[in-house]
Amino acid sequence: MAKVSILMGSDSDLPVMSKAAAMLEKFGIDYEMKVISAHREPDVFVEYAKSAESKGIEVIIAGAGGAAHLPGMCAAMFPLPVIGVPIHTKSLGGVDSLYSIVQMPSGIPVATVAINGAANAAILAAKMLSISDKELREKLANYKEELKDQVVAKDEKLGKIGYEAYIKQMK
Amino acid sequence: MAKVSILMGSDSDLPVMSKAAAMLEKFGIDYEMKVISAHREPDVFVEYAKSAESKGIEVIIAGAGGAAHLPGMCAAMFPLPVIGVPIHTKSLGGVDSLYSIVQMPSGIPVATVAINGAANAAILAAKMLSISDKELREKLANYKEELKDQVVAKDEKLGKIGYEAYIKQMK
Amino acid sequence: MAKVSILMGSDSDLPVMSKAAAMLEKFGIDYEMKVISAHREPDVFVEYAKSAESKGIEVIIAGAGGAAHLPGMCAAMFPLPVIGVPIHTKSLGGVDSLYSIVQMPSGIPVATVAINGAANAAILAAKMLSISDKELREKLANYKEELKDQVVAKDEKLGKIGYEAYIKQMK
Amino acid sequence: MAKVSILMGSDSDLPVMSKAAAMLEKFGIDYEMKVISAHREPDVFVEYAKSAESKGIEVIIAGAGGAAHLPGMCAAMFPLPVIGVPIHTKSLGGVDSLYSIVQMPSGIPVATVAINGAANAAILAAKMLSISDKELREKLANYKEELKDQVVAKDEKLGKIGYEAYIKQMK
Amino acid sequence: MAKVSILMGSDSDLPVMSKAAAMLEKFGIDYEMKVISAHREPDVFVEYAKSAESKGIEVIIAGAGGAAHLPGMCAAMFPLPVIGVPIHTKSLGGVDSLYSIVQMPSGIPVATVAINGAANAAILAAKMLSISDKELREKLANYKEELKDQVVAKDEKLGKIGYEAYIKQMK
Amino acid sequence: MAKVSILMGSDSDLPVMSKAAAMLEKFGIDYEMKVISAHREPDVFVEYAKSAESKGIEVIIAGAGGAAHLPGMCAAMFPLPVIGVPIHTKSLGGVDSLYSIVQMPSGIPVATVAINGAANAAILAAKMLSISDKELREKLANYKEELKDQVVAKDEKLGKIGYEAYIKQMK
Amino acid sequence: MAKVSILMGSDSDLPVMSKAAAMLEKFGIDYEMKVISAHREPDVFVEYAKSAESKGIEVIIAGAGGAAHLPGMCAAMFPLPVIGVPIHTKSLGGVDSLYSIVQMPSGIPVATVAINGAANAAILAAKMLSISDKELREKLANYKEELKDQVVAKDEKLGKIGYEAYIKQMK
Amino acid sequence: MAKVSILMGSDSDLPVMSKAAAMLEKFGIDYEMKVISAHREPDVFVEYAKSAESKGIEVIIAGAGGAAHLPGMCAAMFPLPVIGVPIHTKSLGGVDSLYSIVQMPSGIPVATVAINGAANAAILAAKMLSISDKELREKLANYKEELKDQVVAKDEKLGKIGYEAYIKQMK
Repeated sequence: MAKVSILMGSDSDLPVMSKAAAMLEKFGIDYEMKVISAHREPDVFVEYAKSAESKGIEVIIAGAGGAAHLPGMCAAMFPLPVIGVPIHTKSLGGVDSLYSIVQMPSGIPVATVAINGAANAAILAAKMLSISDKELREKLANYKEELKDQVVAKDEKLGKIGYEAYIKQMK
Repeated sequence: MAKVSILMGSDSDLPVMSKAAAMLEKFGIDYEMKVISAHREPDVFVEYAKSAESKGIEVIIAGAGGAAHLPGMCAAMFPLPVIGVPIHTKSLGGVDSLYSIVQMPSGIPVATVAINGAANAAILAAKMLSISDKELREKLANYKEELKDQVVAKDEKLGKIGYEAYIKQMK
Repeated sequence: MAKVSILMGSDSDLPVMSKAAAMLEKFGIDYEMKVISAHREPDVFVEYAKSAESKGIEVIIAGAGGAAHLPGMCAAMFPLPVIGVPIHTKSLGGVDSLYSIVQMPSGIPVATVAINGAANAAILAAKMLSISDKELREKLANYKEELKDQVVAKDEKLGKIGYEAYIKQMK
Repeated sequence: MAKVSILMGSDSDLPVMSKAAAMLEKFGIDYEMKVISAHREPDVFVEYAKSAESKGIEVIIAGAGGAAHLPGMCAAMFPLPVIGVPIHTKSLGGVDSLYSIVQMPSGIPVATVAINGAANAAILAAKMLSISDKELREKLANYKEELKDQVVAKDEKLGKIGYEAYIKQMK
Repeated sequence: MAKVSILMGSDSDLPVMSKAAAMLEKFGIDYEMKVISAHREPDVFVEYAKSAESKGIEVIIAGAGGAAHLPGMCAAMFPLPVIGVPIHTKSLGGVDSLYSIVQMPSGIPVATVAINGAANAAILAAKMLSISDKELREKLANYKEELKDQVVAKDEKLGKIGYEAYIKQMK
Repeated sequence: MAKVSILMGSDSDLPVMSKAAAMLEKFGIDYEMKVISAHREPDVFVEYAKSAESKGIEVIIAGAGGAAHLPGMCAAMFPLPVIGVPIHTKSLGGVDSLYSIVQMPSGIPVATVAINGAANAAILAAKMLSISDKELREKLANYKEELKDQVVAKDEKLGKIGYEAYIKQMK
Repeated sequence: MAKVSILMGSDSDLPVMSKAAAMLEKFGIDYEMKVISAHREPDVFVEYAKSAESKGIEVIIAGAGGAAHLPGMCAAMFPLPVIGVPIHTKSLGGVDSLYSIVQMPSGIPVATVAINGAANAAILAAKMLSISDKELREKLANYKEELKDQVVAKDEKLGKIGYEAYIKQMK
Repeated sequence: MAKVSILMGSDSDLPVMSKAAAMLEKFGIDYEMKVISAHREPDVFVEYAKSAESKGIEVIIAGAGGAAHLPGMCAAMFPLPVIGVPIHTKSLGGVDSLYSIVQMPSGIPVATVAINGAANAAILAAKMLSISDKELREKLANYKEELKDQVVAKDEKLGKIGYEAYIKQMK
């Protein structure tokens, strides 16, 4: 049964939002993923947002771009945490998405991550769930170690082959 | 019976939004004015937005600040024109409100006016209604003349008394 | 006879502004479309803006980029609603166009849509005209259903084939 | 025993951050509150961030302004959720604080709320804790009702006394 | 006979624009000063802009705020140089005015000065006129000397009394 | 003998600044064009800026990007008008260049044109020179007619072949 | 003999820049402080910037606002480190100053600190000088301890008297 | 033995940061270069930052993008100068990096250079070291001559072959 719901207003956001799905899979967290629009199908959206809790959803991750209302409208109807992912936009680089998501009025917070930060949204969801899930906390600790090992490995490689060779291999 | 609905998410927006009301009164257009929040009372809001058309509302003017979702959510549910008024904010000056209102996705436009431009929102509503209302069109033409006369009078005054005296009288 | 006029200051704006034309065609609304410049041919422009109403134009849609004066100057001379489309610019992403269009002084509103939002400008024009046109109102309701059906179809597809297959098909 | 830790880099942030404390008190959530600086006393900070989990802290709320590193450095060392509150700044309005907090690299998310959004940070912390705490979930639902009742009351008052009287009473 | 015309769209710009007048007086340059609006009285404006050259105007200085079209529309109709002064605005600080004035399309330049830089606009006008006016060139050279002398005097004072006394005297 | 000097701090600005040269050629105005850096060769620069007037230069056009000091430093040393061209930059789009050029302190104006607006800089220089040059004024009037004719021709073409064919021909 | 030179283009920057002087005094570093303008007295400025090294100056701290050229022009002529302090501006908050100082072209760096960060400029100068001055290094270490002690003291006070009493005492 | 340490949080910053290394090599300054992350391996980072001084490091150059905490956290722990290089980012162009690095709180300065300004960071480090190293000062003077010669050569080439040929050769 899905504990996390990954929502996006348009399938054009899927390449970014799929990174949240992949990260949740890595942590073994069940999720569901939907294209759902607060603007284009408000009835469907309201129905979903209201019933999500009773279906067992504990965290919603919502990605949106431009005048990005999906995360905030989820937060208005879903009683548990909502994480917002501002999607990069062509003209304003995603500043429009960021402001539309993060600047929520008092009473209705959205936990906002970086522009296009869908993977981080999933990690944040995992951290929230890990408050009461020791096993998941351990998986997160292991993931943290992985991150560290990757940096250490890169640093060692740089020390060994030097920056010119390293840059060549990056191409 | 009200033809225009003036909405705001918080009563702190009332000093700005009242200028829309005053302008509609000037044109003799019936309106109703409500504090209504898409975030804090989504049920009340959805109910209102859906039934507005059947009650005779022909244009909605919605003001909101920060992550300003009210105008866009109205546009998602109300089939006739929605005019959005971005409210000035302390930290971002209203750029957050502006982007949250104007950058709507394809299919769901909001007619956006200037930051704190509530009076202009009312004029725009009047222009929309005047498409099929010759009398209102005349009132708008008269208002346009008034605007012109005011500028002409100021220019004459400046020509007569000079800038130093003029500035003194402004204080 | 054209009810809507689509104006642009430069033919480089045509690929964007043509989306307004296509959308009006979809709703069966007669329109005319012109390259006309307030800066490069002010006489032609003034003549046009002043006579548009008497020719039967009920809404003007004006697109412009950079120091975008076309929509505002239309609003200064044409008594019915003017919709402004800020065009994306290379250096400032269209923020210059947006500010030049939306921040109009009191008395002279321009109904501003998103950067490059020409299709939404046409929908907004249709909404304005539909205040007194029941048939058009129905067409707009049908279009709204189309939008909803598209999202529903995308969501079903995502549910059926999963995000990896979906993303592959997007390429 | 404190479940939430409210941190700030400077006591000048206390007037804003105290709103998080007041909101946690409202929900009956135990917290501790500290002035602690990642820049001015890195040893003290590192010691604190590392030991917070073992002391029973389940969520950290960190407020910071300018080059705001406190939330991100907490997230680098504390394994459970970190909520960042960007503090308003004189010159840049808090955009500097916001970018420094929200734009975290992959692997290390910070749940960012609005500029000066300390009350919302506390509500978000409560929502996170409520995932495994039914009683708290109820308190949050009651709070949501309160928010709604406040808006309803304001709307009724506006309907009763009109905008002019309402604005006079605001002063 | 006036050689320079100082225009502003609203008398609220007069305190700023009066600095241009004072500076022209300092250089002994004849000018006229008008409140004139391209938006509120387009006919009056067009008439003025077209006839200015024949009346002997050689440079127009135009100040405007927000969606600032006055300088650009002057440049579209007046064949000689137009200097634009972006006026500070409450919400956007004058960035809206600046972009609306400086980002003119190819063919129609506006010589833009700093936000609220009306004094500099007058100096720039003087420099333009001095190309063919040796006497004015000398006045400008003298003014440059004055500027230098002021800085030298301030530096000497600082060296003599120290920064603490200097700051006290500034209050 | 050159009347206009086109300066740039780096040859990477040449593709943009060459448009100023081409435009001056169109008007038959003699110019010189130099790569000269206030930062990398201050002595050469100071020498040039000080002697330009005596060599007969009447207007300087200076293009620069990033922390763009060239136009302002010219204005500090050259007594006649300086026109600044902010060059587009990769990271900030040229906003850095624009602010560095336009926000000059009182006493030292730079006539700023649009980002990458080198052609307009040349037209502005021509307008300045035309104050005392009737023949040049006529050339400018003819150029204005050309601009108008181009727009008229484009509009006629659009009217004749329609937007679909027009867009196809643009590719 | 002065090792550090504190420069500002206008005495209006003195209240901010005096903090650099006070901090240098704290570290016992000899300095001189001057109002000097690259724009208003380029000869005086060039003379100063060229001779500073031979007079024993080892670091220049230059503060400037708006189109802030002073730090960059110092860096073009003075061979040792130049620290730039962007001064807060009314309209753009100091973003103009920041971009004009930090975005220097390759070859001519300016060490930029925060907007109005004059105290930090002095600490940075001290750090530079301390590379070859063990005694100064110790003073800096002591200062670092002071900073830490201040935070510790504030935290203890907060723990003792609580946030309400603390905030009351701040007023 | 390395005197300068070049740090970056991610190997994706290496193509930019390698320019610092190349420049230090040009001046014959020993350096070490590391991929090290304050976020992903805080223990490794803290250990490094604290021991750098005792290993003989005299200046740290730290590059980072987005919520760029590496330079500031170095400055919190390393007693000698830290130079920050804001790395260009896709969505915000590096403004996020710049604000996160430059807007440091009082007491903890970071010497910030331009976005992607790694070469300038190395020159700035060399200038700092040259305060007590006459030989290095001479190398810097020679480099300055090189810069000048390059501009002079470009200017001569432009004078000789003209802008059209020059631009052709640039491609």
